[in-house]
Amino acid sequence: EGWELAEQANRIRRKFTFPDFRTALTFVNHVGELAEEMGHHPEISFGWGHASVEIWTHKIGGLHENDFVLAARIDTLPET
Amino acid sequence: EGWELAEQANRIRRKFTFPDFRTALTFVNHVGELAEEMGHHPEISFGWGHASVEIWTHKIGGLHENDFVLAARIDTLPET
Repeated sequence: EGWELAEQANRIRRKFTFPDFRTALTFVNHVGELAEEMGHHPEISFGWGHASVEIWTHKIGGLHENDFVLAARIDTLPET
Repeated sequence: EGWELAEQANRIRRKFTFPDFRTALTFVNHVGELAEEMGHHPEISFGWGHASVEIWTHKIGGLHENDFVLAARIDTLPET
């Protein structure tokens, strides 16, 4: 649970589970709106009952403070 | 371009490009609505300016006619 370092520690990733596809899609939309609001966009993968969010700063190919701000804000989103 | 076989030929995948994050998110929502309508759900990955859709039938761990129907319907979605 929570955020883990991924890909040689230059990005963070968190996996989420959901009861069905619809709630995963809704969560993905919340993450998408947050990303647009912040002007900082993660990679999002999802399917039936699950989603994964990866965050890093493309310009530096690694992690920057903004990445952790986005992660913390994603943590506040409803998962159902 | 178009659908390619992936993962030992037991799934198909197509990559899409977009001018920004918002249009990728909109496309993902169209795919999601189509998936809910068909009761057949792909794996979707996306980020700023791109999306990837993978389709297979979980029950058989491979490809079934429904997978190609979903792929063909995704091909009719607007990409902008």
